[in-house]
Amino acid sequence: MRKIHVIGIGAGDPDQLTLQAVKALRSTDVFFILDKGELKSDLVQLRRDILDAHVPEGAYRLVEARDPERDRSAGGAAYSPAVGDWRSARAGIYERLIVEDLGEDETGAFLVWGDPALYDSTLGILEEILDRGGVTFSYDVVPGISSVSALVARHRTGLNRVGRPVQITTGRRLAEGFPDGVDDVVVMLDAHQTFRQYADQDIDIYWGAYIGTPDEILVSGPLAETAQHIERLRAQARERKGWIMDTYLLRRHPRG
Amino acid sequence: MRKIHVIGIGAGDPDQLTLQAVKALRSTDVFFILDKGELKSDLVQLRRDILDAHVPEGAYRLVEARDPERDRSAGGAAYSPAVGDWRSARAGIYERLIVEDLGEDETGAFLVWGDPALYDSTLGILEEILDRGGVTFSYDVVPGISSVSALVARHRTGLNRVGRPVQITTGRRLAEGFPDGVDDVVVMLDAHQTFRQYADQDIDIYWGAYIGTPDEILVSGPLAETAQHIERLRAQARERKGWIMDTYLLRRHPRG
Repeated sequence: MRKIHVIGIGAGDPDQLTLQAVKALRSTDVFFILDKGELKSDLVQLRRDILDAHVPEGAYRLVEARDPERDRSAGGAAYSPAVGDWRSARAGIYERLIVEDLGEDETGAFLVWGDPALYDSTLGILEEILDRGGVTFSYDVVPGISSVSALVARHRTGLNRVGRPVQITTGRRLAEGFPDGVDDVVVMLDAHQTFRQYADQDIDIYWGAYIGTPDEILVSGPLAETAQHIERLRAQARERKGWIMDTYLLRRHPRG
Repeated sequence: MRKIHVIGIGAGDPDQLTLQAVKALRSTDVFFILDKGELKSDLVQLRRDILDAHVPEGAYRLVEARDPERDRSAGGAAYSPAVGDWRSARAGIYERLIVEDLGEDETGAFLVWGDPALYDSTLGILEEILDRGGVTFSYDVVPGISSVSALVARHRTGLNRVGRPVQITTGRRLAEGFPDGVDDVVVMLDAHQTFRQYADQDIDIYWGAYIGTPDEILVSGPLAETAQHIERLRAQARERKGWIMDTYLLRRHPRG
């Protein structure tokens, strides 16, 4: 039976790979690499560097495919269906890769940035392929250091305060309001700097981009004093590199 | 100047150590190991095993101290002050260790289960020591695989569903009600199996104990069908080993 590893490779620093991930890399015959297009080719290169560093040359095959374009023009309520279509398109591509490029007794792997458990579609896609019934395989998941963990480690702060909860959410959700019942909120997938919406409140931000890479940028402080600075840095970095991956923690001060 | 690494060592599987953590271990002169007492001596042993596996013998010193007892008898509203007292007591012990056992040009390390960012007091304690002004040092944080990441990896599921938030909270908080605005909730530090309170609702649980160790136990399924089973397994395991570390994800089905 075919086997597949879904390997979390950390948030950008190649040293964030776990020993378990290295072992999984070394037991892999075929790596599937999905390219999101020219702009993020740095990320494809980083994956190649990880393989070069940890797996003997010639010990594996690399199969590259182009990720389907995601329809980001559909805003608001249309978000979920667009994601569903994109996921199905991706499932079709993954299934073809597995059927055509992975032998019956071989082990394949998908390398996932950060932790496969957070805002990543790979596990859902593999389940969708198994549900379709066209191919069978077993799979396991190697957890990785998420950009969330990497962010707060670099800022030397915790995710939660003593005995209190933390929520991890998206920029889109944050735009609908600060989440109920929590004062510590990590925001991912925010292309619109939604933190600006809260700049008049007593909130600290811990922001980071390209965390763990040579391009890393970190800013922290009261939102009122840092929001514009972050906005400017983010725009400049995005312009310079062509893409940006950033994450932030908002920490609201207790009221009263 | 004294340096200190706060190193996340993963949730129990020694292979969950990152390469960054291994490098940090190897650059450490003095490891500070706090013993929570007889019952959790397995955990102290696991730390020693990690050192044996990755750092040449004789390359470091090991300083062990006894953790202050935490007053768990104080319930409800008294929780935070009790935690505060305990933290100050711990800060006193850590400060003494740093002053007495770490040379001016040496590097010390605290090894933290999981990720130092989640429900761990080490970073807060180091800041408290620096605030007191009795000793100066620099410190950095090496993120680790949290029990949260390890849990969902073993269950091969994600923390969040597509585009939706996830909250990480405590058993004590969950006892006050299911958090507002989220359907995916990870619960840590729950000594009272608070999930039982929700067994009449349409909620799936992904539960795990001793994750990543040879004693690992995993159970998942509808809460109505699994709550009693988990309760029984948990009691047996706790009896057998003398201690338990468990975590779970509650996933509520959308209503309507």
